Parts: sequence; structure tokens; C-alpha cells
Amino acid sequence: MTPFRLAQAQINCTVGDLIGNTEKICQWIQRARALNADLVSFPELTITGYPPEDLVLKPQFVADNIDALQVVAAEAKGIVVVVGFVDYANGLYNAAAVLAHGKVQGVYHKHHLPNYGVFDEKRYFLTGREQHVLVVNGVSVGLNICEDMWAPRGPIRIQASGGATVIVNISASPYQIGKIDERERMLRTRAKRNLAIVAFNNLVGGQDELVFDGRSMIVDHEGHLLARGKAFEEDLVVADINIQDVLESRKHKQSRSDRPSTRMQSVTRIVCSDKPYAGTRVKVSPSVGETLTTCEEVYRALCLGIRDYVSKNGFSSVAIGLSGGIDSALTAALAVDALSPRQVLGVFMPSRHTSQASRVDVESLVRNLGIHLRTISIEEAYTAFLNMLSDAFQETKTDATEENIQARIRGAVLMALSNKFGWLVLSTGNKSEMSVGYATLYGDMAGGLSVLKDVPKTMVYRLARFRNAMTSSAVIPEHTLQRAPTAELRADQTDQDILPPYDILDPILEAYVEGNQAVAKIAALGFDASTVEQVGRMVDGCEYKRRQAPVGIKITSRALGKDRRMPVTNRYTGTS
Amino acid sequence: MTPFRLAQAQINCTVGDLIGNTEKICQWIQRARALNADLVSFPELTITGYPPEDLVLKPQFVADNIDALQVVAAEAKGIVVVVGFVDYANGLYNAAAVLAHGKVQGVYHKHHLPNYGVFDEKRYFLTGREQHVLVVNGVSVGLNICEDMWAPRGPIRIQASGGATVIVNISASPYQIGKIDERERMLRTRAKRNLAIVAFNNLVGGQDELVFDGRSMIVDHEGHLLARGKAFEEDLVVADINIQDVLESRKHKQSRSDRPSTRMQSVTRIVCSDKPYAGTRVKVSPSVGETLTTCEEVYRALCLGIRDYVSKNGFSSVAIGLSGGIDSALTAALAVDALSPRQVLGVFMPSRHTSQASRVDVESLVRNLGIHLRTISIEEAYTAFLNMLSDAFQETKTDATEENIQARIRGAVLMALSNKFGWLVLSTGNKSEMSVGYATLYGDMAGGLSVLKDVPKTMVYRLARFRNAMTSSAVIPEHTLQRAPTAELRADQTDQDILPPYDILDPILEAYVEGNQAVAKIAALGFDASTVEQVGRMVDGCEYKRRQAPVGIKITSRALGKDRRMPVTNRYTGTS
Repeated sequence: MTPFRLAQAQINCTVGDLIGNTEKICQWIQRARALNADLVSFPELTITGYPPEDLVLKPQFVADNIDALQVVAAEAKGIVVVVGFVDYANGLYNAAAVLAHGKVQGVYHKHHLPNYGVFDEKRYFLTGREQHVLVVNGVSVGLNICEDMWAPRGPIRIQASGGATVIVNISASPYQIGKIDERERMLRTRAKRNLAIVAFNNLVGGQDELVFDGRSMIVDHEGHLLARGKAFEEDLVVADINIQDVLESRKHKQSRSDRPSTRMQSVTRIVCSDKPYAGTRVKVSPSVGETLTTCEEVYRALCLGIRDYVSKNGFSSVAIGLSGGIDSALTAALAVDALSPRQVLGVFMPSRHTSQASRVDVESLVRNLGIHLRTISIEEAYTAFLNMLSDAFQETKTDATEENIQARIRGAVLMALSNKFGWLVLSTGNKSEMSVGYATLYGDMAGGLSVLKDVPKTMVYRLARFRNAMTSSAVIPEHTLQRAPTAELRADQTDQDILPPYDILDPILEAYVEGNQAVAKIAALGFDASTVEQVGRMVDGCEYKRRQAPVGIKITSRALGKDRRMPVTNRYTGTS
Repeated sequence: MTPFRLAQAQINCTVGDLIGNTEKICQWIQRARALNADLVSFPELTITGYPPEDLVLKPQFVADNIDALQVVAAEAKGIVVVVGFVDYANGLYNAAAVLAHGKVQGVYHKHHLPNYGVFDEKRYFLTGREQHVLVVNGVSVGLNICEDMWAPRGPIRIQASGGATVIVNISASPYQIGKIDERERMLRTRAKRNLAIVAFNNLVGGQDELVFDGRSMIVDHEGHLLARGKAFEEDLVVADINIQDVLESRKHKQSRSDRPSTRMQSVTRIVCSDKPYAGTRVKVSPSVGETLTTCEEVYRALCLGIRDYVSKNGFSSVAIGLSGGIDSALTAALAVDALSPRQVLGVFMPSRHTSQASRVDVESLVRNLGIHLRTISIEEAYTAFLNMLSDAFQETKTDATEENIQARIRGAVLMALSNKFGWLVLSTGNKSEMSVGYATLYGDMAGGLSVLKDVPKTMVYRLARFRNAMTSSAVIPEHTLQRAPTAELRADQTDQDILPPYDILDPILEAYVEGNQAVAKIAALGFDASTVEQVGRMVDGCEYKRRQAPVGIKITSRALGKDRRMPVTNRYTGTS
């Protein structure tokens, strides 16, 4: 028996770009057909991009996406295609269309709709109920969508019991640290338990706060990884599958999955083609790809997040306020790696509180990265503000107000450059600062994309060292890595005047923000109770700032965005 | 038979304030008991406040809310109490507890969880399945929560078939224009169809972008309104119900509701007390309250939204940038009516482009409202910015950049006053501007609460005239109402240099933003196609600004906040 050639198109779609996505899908169908693949699959909601959010509430958008599906269907000749789209059938469904012979042969509706974390699928979609098994060149293929595979009692059981030897799962699974291992474990379990080949076709690319990391996988019925797509890049993952082995294993071993015979009736069979490919095919040697360290993974996720936010929103350059500190240095390095040195502009905006060391560090960084630098002192505007406010502020003491004024002047300068030249401003605050509110709203928080918003300060250091080790000579000055963190908004200031040391703050924040743990429980882990309480109060007290922050790239299990929806008005302290 | 005395406590809770809410609930139980009510109900999620959002993902918060319920239960003596809380039973439920004899007698779990518009209840809660009928002094009372009543095939059918003559529905139904009529129609329909007294106990108060308008209602089995609570205020709504009439009507008329006998088994009966009240009670004369005009309603909703945002977030005063235009004038009038003149500070920040007429109008407004005014010219800072940027901007033309700089200086001045004196900044942009992006991010968009964010410009005018008619002499100067709208950021500027006239723009925006209608469909309503296309492009192009806007008070069917979740990165134009 000729092996079954399965292709997964791990492509980078753009939300709302129905025409662009359709063209790309057609090109990748051609690529898969050129390899004589039996079937090529695409990621979840391929045609609309993922997540389309409230776009799907526009009836015209849904109609246009169905028109686009017809364009793709016309291309599906000599190969079976599985593509994601929004179906309308007395309500909306997150759907996968099966295309063959130039036509839509059947449509599967997602059963399990995630409605937690960053997901809102129950806002849009109805729950699918039907089961589908395609018959492609004699091979039975079960079909489901993303979360369907994560649910232990999901459609795979019925599909495998209904005869499917290959399960195609089209996904849009966002990146977060550690997710790849979770996915692989889950796929191995499903494959072994159901004695089926499991093919997870992931999306790749950045969309607002999400980055999809690709790394599509094909796992055989014994739980071995047959192929894995590239990380953070488009890829065509192709594998030849010996279906005979799967059938043999089923004869010898009783599958552990339930096989209620009544349920088998509910499976709809879609016969797409009836003759296995007879010619000779170019050999393919599937790769299981590289295994990345956490730093490598996060670094590449951030680069892809920047690159796609910039390009998909039609920008060609970015501006970054460089302070001589580590956050802005890392952001600049990421931007250069995501784009190119000539697309990145550094802006140094010294004040009376800026040290000579900061200036030296900025100059080294800019030289190392090969980017252009513009220096604009904020002194004149700062003096002007102090004069303008002198009446109002008489008999008051200098406090954080004056610090915020400096930060806001810098924000306004960056925005003026953005407005005049069309550069996107990248803001540079890290997750630790954004969590406790150690940032100025409309000041250093200003920008279109907040690159490090989900990166804790301790990880900022790790990433900076990782980046420095990538090239023969370090790009981020060693002094920047060594100096005490400071906002330089008044004399002799350091972050630790107000905040606990970052190696204490970060694990507290992880427990409090990501883990939803109570103050008393965190203190019981070995932290000073009053410190934990203070951190909790700081986090709760600045929800209004976070609400007005730019989107940032999610890399942890709970980012400060769609992932965490706290009320601004909130009297709960957790210490009552 | 003694009439059944039903009390509805229409109270203003605060999200997260478990202690404060619990104290208030206990006080209102005492008030209802003093009137010898048989039963007193409270709004949905009374103990936590509504909506608690991701607070309920904190296990300690849920545990604390269950502790608070025990405190309330201890107060429930000599009266049956229905109160909303978050239940934990192998998962979270939006729940109503039945309290009597100082103990929790039973718990109902909400069946229908709204997950559209501003609602995310499927993110948090599992679906309830059980039915409950309480027996209170010989009267059978069905119990359900908010959306349960809106679903035509909701729990009321089973509860009424199971013998309930009174249905208590505890709600947190947010205000929007026209909602009161929808509610009343729905309640009448449910009451008549099920031959039951229907009691809708609504929440009152502001919570971030939502305002709950109260106006709880009791409708009899023939669809007549027996009582209605106050609008936008706390109220104890009490009515004496003749249950005999309901029972009679059921004898004579076949109820139109389905009564499948098998379903009756699934109703849990909770016997709370067994003896009707025997003494003499003070007479109550329930009122059906006033009917408000749209302007009255919206005006009061905005006042309550301001008042509660300010007080629940611990502020005592607000600062408003006054330009001489209608938006800031209306915002100031609302703030004065929501708070008091001495809690409102006007800040006038003239530039070279500010007309003498604007100054005169600001001075009249401030005099009419009796608020304090501070004038801070922005010229010095503006000159400073132009000097600082002169190198960068050489050989460029003056454009919107320079206008935005002025707006951002004003934003920074207001924020400096806020930082120094603890005043909350109210931003003043209207929905028309916020929809098309005719506003400066970090400039006039800066602030903690965006009062008019959901009020279209044409309605701003209506509200201003309404406010002027409220008092013997107008507070908003007639010249402000008459002049052409202008941002005064360059010479001889008017809004209509860029935007279509507001009486054309607003209906287009209503169709596009609230109605999700396609450009071609809107044009077919009689608008110039290129104008509609231009408006659509403007709306789509400034999602990044709206994402960073302060929360605003919802008054329409679709506000620019949780109600409308559009991707920032989005290539759909709707005109392809």
C-alpha cells in the first residue's frame, strides 16, 4: 500500500485580510500538490485569521469569508484540502471545510469552544455536534479543531472508533512558555489511547497580544513524534504515513478508547477521492526540528510579535526611547532582530537627572546595533511645565508629580516623531513594573506596542544576556546589565527605593498575578507578609493604568491583557 | 388569606467590597423585617457586586464571599431572604441563596449565562440545572437569576408548572436607552403566559462602564405593573400580593405554558417557614414611579456613573479641561450635578489658537456652575516642544503633529494636577469623535473616566439643552451651543474640515458601530457612499486609540468598550 502523504501548511495569516489569506492558501495548496500530497490542512480559521473577534459579528464579513472559501475550493483539485473558516448555519460556527474536486465536500463544526484566558469563543460561536470522517484515497481521516483535541472526551474517540486512522486537528494555539511540552504530551496521549496518527496543524504569526509559534506536529499511533514544523516560521510539514501499521496495531491490541456502537452511527462519512496516488513521488524526510531553550523561545516569540504587529499594521519603522537602562536596550535589540537596524530609531531624551553613564551606555548600544540615534533634551519643556504650574503648585512639595511630568514630556516627544514620520512607538516597560504600576501613564507607557509587557524584570536580564551571547561581541553594554535599575527621574533614584528587589518581587507577582493566590498563601511560601501585602495592594491599585496600556506580547500563562480582566473599581484587598 | 408581602431591596453594591455589601444587606433586611415582609430579595451577585470579573478566579475571594453569606444568613430571622453570591460546588456558579431561620436553606444556580455584549459569564460560571420552588408562609415562590427570565423557555415555565405563583428574579441589568420598555414587555409576557406574579429585582449603581438603573418591577399574573422602584436610586419596593387571585385565574384559565408532568419531579421544594404572618402590618402603597424622557434618563445615568466611579474609587474631586466647547461644558454640568460645585475644578488651558469667545464662554460656564477655575496657558510648553523638535522637524510641513502636541500638553497639565492634588481627571470626548478617532491619544483622551464616550455628538447637544431647561437660567452659554464645533488647535479650524456634519455622521456611526452594518447597506439608506466608506475607514483605523482610552459610561446598545471587541491588527475594510 502506498503510504498516505499528509501535508500541513503552517502559514501566517492576517486577521481580516480575506483576499491576502485566500491567495496564500491557494499558493500553499499548489506547493502541497506539487509534492503529490493526499491531503493538505491549514490552521484554524485560516480564511479570517485568528482571532477575528467582533469582526465575525458583521454579517458582511461572514458572507465575504464564505465567498473566499469558494475561491479556495476552486483551487482544491487533485488534492484534498482542509481549511478553517466561519460557517453560518442559523448561527456562527468555528468550522473546517473539506475541499476536493473543486468543491466543498463537507463542513465540520468545532465542538469544544474555549472561553477562558484570552479566548472568547462562546461569545461568537455555537457548539458543533456532528462527527465527520473523510475518506481520502482509501484512508479514513477524522477531523477536529484545536480545543476539541485538548478535551479528553473530545471527538477523537468517536472518530477513531468510527474507523479514522489519521486525525487532522487544525489549531490556533498561542505561544506561552512551556506550552510546547504540554501540547506534545497531550498529542502523545491521544495518539496512543486511540491508536491513531494525530496531526496538529498550528498557526504561526503575531496578532495583537498573541504569538502563534507554529511547531505543528505529527505523532504516530505509538506516540512517537514523526514530524514537527519550524518554530515561529511558516513551514510545510509533510510526512508519509504507513496506515497498514495503524490497522495492524488495532488488530493486535484492543484500543483503550470507548467504542459505543450506537455512536458510530453519528459519524458522517465524506468520500473525497477513491484512488490512492499511483505515480512516483519525490521523497520527503520529515524533521522533528530543533528544541529551543526558554530564552531562545521567548526571544523569538517577541521578535515575531514585533515583526507582525509592525508589518500587519502597515508600519515600516519603529521609534524607541532609550534611557541607558536594560528594558529599552533589550527592546531595541529585539526590534533590530525582528526588523533591521535601519528600521529602528533610538531616541535619547536626557534631563537634569540623566547620568553621564546613561549617555555612554546609550551611545554604545546604538553603535553595537547599528541604529540611528536622535538626542532631544527635555529640559526646555520640563522648565516650561514647572513655570506653568508654579502658581498651582505653590506651597506644595516636590513628589512623583514632577517625575511623571518628565516621563510625559518624553512620551509626547516620541508621539510627535511618530505623528510626523509615521514611526510606530515601542514602549519598553516590563511586566514587573506594569504589574505594580511603577510606570507613568501617557509617559513611558505611551506607544503602540508594549514589547516587554509580559516579561518579568528578572527574565529581561536573562534575555539580555542571551542576546549578548548570540553574537561574538555583546550588543547590550555590560554596564547596563550591572547598574542598579533606576528611572532617573530624580537625583540618586533607584527602583528599590519603592519596590522590593526584583528577585523577590517577581516570584510574588507570579503567584499573585498568574497564580491568583491569596496574600497569606504567598507569604506562607517564605516571603515577608508585609511585602506580599504591599505588592498585592500595588497591583490592585493600578488597574486603571493597565486598562490604558498598549497591547503587549503574551509569553506567560497569564498576560496583562485579555488574559486578566479585573474591574477598575474594586474594593477587594484579599487581606480582610 | 393575608396578602403575601414581597419586598425588593434595590441596593447599590460595590464590586469587591464584601464587608460593605454585607453590612448594607443586613441593614436592608432589617428595614424589610420592620415592614413585616414575608420575603426580601436582593440583586444578582449582591455580596460580590456585579460584575466581579476575574476577581472570582481568586479562590480566596470566593471563600471570603461564602463567609460573608454566613454573616447575612445569621441576620435572616423572621423573614425569608434571597441574596446573590458566587457558589462553589466543583466549579463556580452565579447563585442565589435562600436564607431563613438564620441559615442557608437552599441555593439556586443560574441556568442561562449571558456571554455577549458586555457579558462574559461563561468565562466564570458553570450552567445550573436544578429548579427550586420555595415555600414561604404557604406561598410557592419560584427563583431565578437575570438572563433566566429573558430566555423564553427558561426556568419560569417549570417553576410555574411546579406550583410557583410568585417568581422572584434577581438581576443586574445594565442601563441602556430603551431597555426599560424591553424589560417591561418581557416581564408582562412572562407573567401572563405563566399566570404568575413576576418580581424583577434590579441592581442600582455605577461600576466602571456600566450603570445599573434600578427600576425593579413587580408585574401581576395579568401583566399589570404593581410596583416599580426608583430610577438610578436605591429603593425598597414593597407590594402586598393576593395569591388567591393567581390561584383563581389558574383554575379558570388553562395556562398556556407547557406542563410536562415528568419535569415536575425535578423541582426541589425548600420549605422556609410554615405560618403566614398573623399580626397587623403597616399599609404599603406601592408606586409605579415616574416615566422618564430619554434625555432625563441618559442625564441621570451619566450622573450616577460619574458619582459612583468617583466615590467607589476613593476620589473626592474631579478636574475637567474646559475649552469653551460643548463637550467639556456638558461634562462639567454633569459633574456638578453628580457631585457638588466645590468638588469640580475647571481648568482652562488657552494657546495661540484659543479665541476670545472661548474664554468668555468658559468664564460664563464656570460662573453659572459655581465651580472654581484655574487658567494655565500652554504657550510656554508649546514653544519649548517646537524648539526641542526643530532639528528633527526641519524641512517638514506643519500638520496634525503640532495639533497633537498642544493636546498632549493639556493632557499632561491635567495629569500633573491630578497627581499633585488627587483629583480625578474626567475626559470629555464624545462617541462620534471616539468612533472616528478625532481625538488625541494621551491628549484630550487622557483621564480616568470618559464621561461622554458613548454619547453621540448630536445627543450631546440635546443633553445640553435639556440641562439648560432644568433650571430657570441656562448654565451652558448659548454661544457654546450655537458656535461651529472646533478643536481650536490651529487657526480657523472646525470639526467639519475633516468630518461630515454631525447630523450625517451620527446615523452612519450608529449603523456601522452599533448595527454592524456593511458600508454598502448604509449607503443604501440614503447616505453618500464615499462618505460612508470614509467613515468606516476612520472607525477601523483608530482601534489602537480606543484600546488605550479610559472607561466610559455605556448608554447605547453598543458602547466603545467591553461591548465591542475589535482586533487592532485588522485588514478587513468591508469594501472589498
